[in-house]
Amino acid sequence: MALPVSPLAPQTHAVPPAIAGVRFATAEAGIRYKGRTDVLLAVFDPGTVVAGVLTRSLCPSAAVDWCRAQLPAGSARALVVNSGNANAFTGLKGIEAVGLTAEIAAKAVGCRPDEVFLASTGVIGEPLDARKFDGVLQRLAGELADAPWMGPARAIMTTDTFPKLAEARLDIDGTEIAIAGIAKGSGMIAPDMATMLSFVFTDAPIAAPVLQALLARHNRTSFNAITVDSDTSTSDTLLAFATGKAAIDPITDLDDPRAEAFGQALGDVLFELAMQVVRDGEGATKFVTITVRSAQSDESAEKIARAIADSPLVKTAIAGEDANWGRVVMAVGKAGQPADRDRLTIAFGDITVARNGERAPDYSEEAASAYMKGQDLAITVDMGLGTGEASVYTCDLTHGYIDINGSYRS
Amino acid sequence: MALPVSPLAPQTHAVPPAIAGVRFATAEAGIRYKGRTDVLLAVFDPGTVVAGVLTRSLCPSAAVDWCRAQLPAGSARALVVNSGNANAFTGLKGIEAVGLTAEIAAKAVGCRPDEVFLASTGVIGEPLDARKFDGVLQRLAGELADAPWMGPARAIMTTDTFPKLAEARLDIDGTEIAIAGIAKGSGMIAPDMATMLSFVFTDAPIAAPVLQALLARHNRTSFNAITVDSDTSTSDTLLAFATGKAAIDPITDLDDPRAEAFGQALGDVLFELAMQVVRDGEGATKFVTITVRSAQSDESAEKIARAIADSPLVKTAIAGEDANWGRVVMAVGKAGQPADRDRLTIAFGDITVARNGERAPDYSEEAASAYMKGQDLAITVDMGLGTGEASVYTCDLTHGYIDINGSYRS
Repeated sequence: MALPVSPLAPQTHAVPPAIAGVRFATAEAGIRYKGRTDVLLAVFDPGTVVAGVLTRSLCPSAAVDWCRAQLPAGSARALVVNSGNANAFTGLKGIEAVGLTAEIAAKAVGCRPDEVFLASTGVIGEPLDARKFDGVLQRLAGELADAPWMGPARAIMTTDTFPKLAEARLDIDGTEIAIAGIAKGSGMIAPDMATMLSFVFTDAPIAAPVLQALLARHNRTSFNAITVDSDTSTSDTLLAFATGKAAIDPITDLDDPRAEAFGQALGDVLFELAMQVVRDGEGATKFVTITVRSAQSDESAEKIARAIADSPLVKTAIAGEDANWGRVVMAVGKAGQPADRDRLTIAFGDITVARNGERAPDYSEEAASAYMKGQDLAITVDMGLGTGEASVYTCDLTHGYIDINGSYRS
Repeated sequence: MALPVSPLAPQTHAVPPAIAGVRFATAEAGIRYKGRTDVLLAVFDPGTVVAGVLTRSLCPSAAVDWCRAQLPAGSARALVVNSGNANAFTGLKGIEAVGLTAEIAAKAVGCRPDEVFLASTGVIGEPLDARKFDGVLQRLAGELADAPWMGPARAIMTTDTFPKLAEARLDIDGTEIAIAGIAKGSGMIAPDMATMLSFVFTDAPIAAPVLQALLARHNRTSFNAITVDSDTSTSDTLLAFATGKAAIDPITDLDDPRAEAFGQALGDVLFELAMQVVRDGEGATKFVTITVRSAQSDESAEKIARAIADSPLVKTAIAGEDANWGRVVMAVGKAGQPADRDRLTIAFGDITVARNGERAPDYSEEAASAYMKGQDLAITVDMGLGTGEASVYTCDLTHGYIDINGSYRS
């Protein structure tokens, strides 16, 4: 199914720099798709550390289980990603498949299997024949290069309509540190096709626990702050690899001010990639930032923002360019969080539509309707209760989503 | 907007009997709709008791607040329902409007305002001019009759495509007890149009606390077990009125075996009405029963069933007649309830599609696809963990839903 490129796609894409100590190659293994790359092998120099955030699904894929088992050691030499088959809900066969894939990759690269990280995206429940990687990974190991990143970004796509890349550079102690990132995802999940995967690479010398802490912190306001359809993948995977090649003293402590600076740059890359995932939301025609302010806590604000962002009625109203703030009130009411109807203020962009629990006296339907015709929209809810604040990023719910997800798999 | 009748509409409708002590009349008050009735006045003989279940929304409508305040006294003489304006998020004006409506009705009927119950459904945020009821309610009080129930069932409709009625009769101590019920609802909510309202009437002599307990118990497996789009109304209201006219000794104790019998009949009426609401789900083309068995507890089963029923990806797959059990696995995984992927069994109708955490060895895509072409579908998930069980009733997510909710309000 060749989908037209999302109307929300960025006009240009980042061109991340080569990362010292990271090389990669892609291939057409024919796992499901024909005439396009579907396997990525990335190889890391010895000494590379890894951190990761994995799906909270209680029915995770075999690859997620594998990564979860290897992450505590914090050491990585290779990453293998395939698109077309999620190797999820494949029972014992799935466990065997990840073991065999890691073994083949380890032999091709010259490392231990437990230094190989894996991610799969595609059909659920279909056994993945890992023998298909035999030969392919060996060949890829002989074709490794350190750029351009477009190749890996394309090889991991499923229903994505554009490749997703981001980069950041920062100066630490007079040395340039580089971060390169790629991602895929267009529904939060469509188990037979989409899922969210992201891989970030840096030459920073940083201890695995510090990288893990920074990744988890900035994941919260990037990938964990987006929603396309409220569905959580069995396979969501975010991994960060740090080769340590940059010539600075290693960052080994989270309290090191350089950790904060690096974390900011890492956060920028994650945020940029996450926004691209929303912009490629299945069927999306509007990008929407939902901000909840003055809630009882940040956590409460996040839950209310998510209730609004996940509401089918809010999302369809946005698709219909309808400034339907009544549905926003409804979503606030169903969030199960502290709320006082009579203190609520709601704005669409700069237009206050409701204040103190009723329609704003100066509300102009005409102005609100004109605003809703835009492509990038902001809905802000002030709860009038405390200082909690959070933003969640989402898209509208359109006929396109039904077309993509309501058509038969084959 | 005249919508075509849902393809899932029942072929026939119930003709509930007159209930001694209940009379009603309807009118065209022109609150929003033209050329159709939009106000219902029901009047109850002295001695009528009332019980109710109201939305858990933290941004409830003014009418919900009013009912919540009057319910503890348990005494009712009148019910006023209007469609076209929800009187929700209308601030102080909303509170004044319910007070004035109750006053007008009380004067027309000859009772105290606190014996008048109110429900409103329609646009949110638009002040309701209660003065419109002046004259109308007085006139209606002179036109009261005890049948047919089609009039009230139609007057409370919004985006409903068919009126919803149910009835039950049971023998207690040799006397026939009658229950009549009406409902409206097609999205769980579309604040500018739909919401869920239901009113049930009986001649049983039953104490208000017993009626309340039975209503709450049977609401759990009827109205609280359905979902169209996961959105909860600001105005959901279920009220039961018992006139006590039937010539049997009053039921004053929940342990009275007659309470159990009456509760079963009441439960049947609630269930029947709730299923009709799902069958009128906005854009629905399939009616789906999701049953989760062998979960750790009934509550856990209910949460998992709801996660499946609310998943846009599951609902769009059903619309596409796709036996996409991978999406069911996904929804189980995201429910946040105890789950062991490798013990899951999933069936579509009688067809086991997955067993012990992987595709069933004898799975036939052809048979599953043929099953999905039916109009009434059942998805059963066996968690393999305990004895908890629950069913949730829902419909598919189609282009029709987007059409209805993504079009501009005016």
